[in-house]
Amino acid sequence: MSILIKAVGLNEQTVDIFIEGNRIKRILPAENDRQSFLADIEIDGRRKAVIPGLVNMHTHAAMTLFRGFGDDMPLMPWLEEKIWPNEAKLTSEDIYTGVKLACVEMIRSGTTAFFDMYFQSDIAAQAVEEMGLRAVLAENYFDYFDPQQLEQCKRLIEKRFAQKAPACDRIRFALGPHAIYTVSGDLLRWSSDFAKDNDLLIQFHLAETEGETDFCRDHFGTTPVRYMQQLGVLSPRIIAAHVLYVDEEEIRILAGSGVNVVHNPASNMKLGSGHQFLYKEMREAGITVAIGTDGCSSSNNLDMIEAMKLASLLGKSWRKKPEVLTSAEMFWSATQAGAEMIGIDAGRIEEGYLADLCLIDLNLPAFTPNFNYLSNLVFAANGSCVDTVICDGRILMRDKKIPGEDEIMEKAARMAYELIKRKK
Amino acid sequence: MSILIKAVGLNEQTVDIFIEGNRIKRILPAENDRQSFLADIEIDGRRKAVIPGLVNMHTHAAMTLFRGFGDDMPLMPWLEEKIWPNEAKLTSEDIYTGVKLACVEMIRSGTTAFFDMYFQSDIAAQAVEEMGLRAVLAENYFDYFDPQQLEQCKRLIEKRFAQKAPACDRIRFALGPHAIYTVSGDLLRWSSDFAKDNDLLIQFHLAETEGETDFCRDHFGTTPVRYMQQLGVLSPRIIAAHVLYVDEEEIRILAGSGVNVVHNPASNMKLGSGHQFLYKEMREAGITVAIGTDGCSSSNNLDMIEAMKLASLLGKSWRKKPEVLTSAEMFWSATQAGAEMIGIDAGRIEEGYLADLCLIDLNLPAFTPNFNYLSNLVFAANGSCVDTVICDGRILMRDKKIPGEDEIMEKAARMAYELIKRKK
Repeated sequence: MSILIKAVGLNEQTVDIFIEGNRIKRILPAENDRQSFLADIEIDGRRKAVIPGLVNMHTHAAMTLFRGFGDDMPLMPWLEEKIWPNEAKLTSEDIYTGVKLACVEMIRSGTTAFFDMYFQSDIAAQAVEEMGLRAVLAENYFDYFDPQQLEQCKRLIEKRFAQKAPACDRIRFALGPHAIYTVSGDLLRWSSDFAKDNDLLIQFHLAETEGETDFCRDHFGTTPVRYMQQLGVLSPRIIAAHVLYVDEEEIRILAGSGVNVVHNPASNMKLGSGHQFLYKEMREAGITVAIGTDGCSSSNNLDMIEAMKLASLLGKSWRKKPEVLTSAEMFWSATQAGAEMIGIDAGRIEEGYLADLCLIDLNLPAFTPNFNYLSNLVFAANGSCVDTVICDGRILMRDKKIPGEDEIMEKAARMAYELIKRKK
Repeated sequence: MSILIKAVGLNEQTVDIFIEGNRIKRILPAENDRQSFLADIEIDGRRKAVIPGLVNMHTHAAMTLFRGFGDDMPLMPWLEEKIWPNEAKLTSEDIYTGVKLACVEMIRSGTTAFFDMYFQSDIAAQAVEEMGLRAVLAENYFDYFDPQQLEQCKRLIEKRFAQKAPACDRIRFALGPHAIYTVSGDLLRWSSDFAKDNDLLIQFHLAETEGETDFCRDHFGTTPVRYMQQLGVLSPRIIAAHVLYVDEEEIRILAGSGVNVVHNPASNMKLGSGHQFLYKEMREAGITVAIGTDGCSSSNNLDMIEAMKLASLLGKSWRKKPEVLTSAEMFWSATQAGAEMIGIDAGRIEEGYLADLCLIDLNLPAFTPNFNYLSNLVFAANGSCVDTVICDGRILMRDKKIPGEDEIMEKAARMAYELIKRKK
């Protein structure tokens, strides 16, 4: 299939973009009357701008079902009273439905690829495959330092990866050992070896809270990053989420090991995890830093445009430096950085790259006037400016409508209400 | 004119709302088949919720023309190179057009009343009158401690208030002496007396930056709030914007004087002014705290739903307390608090109150599931969820469309580009 996007804004230019199969084939200066390419589908790009699809590098997609269920609560009562008892009841149908809702939300706000970390990643894969997005799905697990659970985790992972090939080439699986306070050192080491043997990425939560640091000092006599280093599990396979509590030496350790980092400003702020994320220092040390929304139970939406704004404003704010974390830097972090981490030819609008892209509706107050398009995107707009989404050369949303979205939202709401009422 | 909103969500109920003239006349449980009221216009409220119109208590509306013009810059170069030289060129037509653009943006994101602080408030009034919003327009002025300019300011204000009656009863004028570092003590005292004699509100920027505090100590030997107290200008007429740098005693001074405070989280963050706004302490001391977006040159949009989220997340973040600044508290601050400050019967959906209200589109991922409607509004949604806006009993937006908005945006963009190029 081929798609021609005619006369769309790309940086300072107006261009025609020709998509063939799942790649951007040609980008040429727009000429109104030229029948430059014959395409199966033509899209009018006037009053629109094209951007690469956003890459959400840390989320728990199925947790859309818990959106708004217990906000404004201290962390432990929230987890113990609201989240954990209900997570324990999640069925495969719940996961499938929650991921579909998440995909609707991500498509609507311009995300074309995401890194997920949750249970039943094989079920999540079905939903993602149907919705047309690109994803790396990390199976989440923990042994709570119990040797029996450790063995169960190993068997779960071995079985999963023996059985399942990715459902389609948009989807890959990965490992998601939860965090140092829920996963034993033995299981972390085993995960690292398993990932190496099977060429997998690993995501975990790292140095997210002061509590985690205290736990680590109490139990392992050091800080989270140093503990991970001592275990020998730090490598370029690692995509560490949060990483709020690190010192200069730990940043050098992470950089030296090639570890990737994901900043989740909304979640860190809303849960009160902390605000001094060291974006600038990490980048200067050579660490690739991407942006994530985290799950909807903590950050409440999956809007990566909002996440860029929050990341920038939070960094400018506590440093009292309006010149740091620029819109261009945030845009890189929300597109190319994630694409690089998961090794896809995306995150750029260039010939030969994957046709993972969005058209932005410029006919909005947020883009009026339009002195600086990236500044308007990051600081003035939000996910609702996305008009059209193409992923892997397929149109997932056009004119702000996704086929079937109303039914998906309706079903997800119904299942969320039933889940909360259901007895285990 | 009368309007009937049928079967709309209000808190946990479904109600019919009957509006007659500019007031909410009746609110009754919805009954599908009852022809309860004969209204000139009927609005289908199904899958929608009603909220009071949001009240943006600090902005510089005409500065929409400078949106995205010089972001990510240190404060002084930004002001000296970008903003001030172009503000000096602003014509009445620019102000009129910029305010119209601001009104389009505010209506689209659910604001029905705002407190503005800028030049040529008489021109702004024309634009607001035409757009149908409610506003208090504070004339902004400064003397830079120059006795000649002081006299000019007095004459400007005396002339303005002698000449002009409010254009319509949705609009009032107020005084806007800029800040302690641009306005002499004599002019502040004169402004306070003038406001008292003419029953006017006063807005100024107060304790916004560390630089202001340093200036105040250097020139007046004390902190901004104490200096204002010494001048004798603190009173319930004062609506102070920002107020980031205050200690416990200063909070007591403000509370004791009946001063109102406006928190502007996006601006404070993006300009790096500071992050530790003492919302909780001010409220506990009895101060009414409203929310504002500030102007589009510093916060980049006028979205009060985003402002509620930012205020909450920022407060939770630096305090490391997820339970503070709840969605309900932020909603109060963005509606009733502002309505109280400017003395209008708005900010509540109740019989007898002004018909200043919005319908929220619930058929969105942000409201799916909908366990807690306020939580979804504040933490998951943004201004784009607003479907219908009614102000003073008139429909300003329906089905997300404002009559004439495309022309206003087009003209504003053109004038902004011309303004930047124009020589003084």
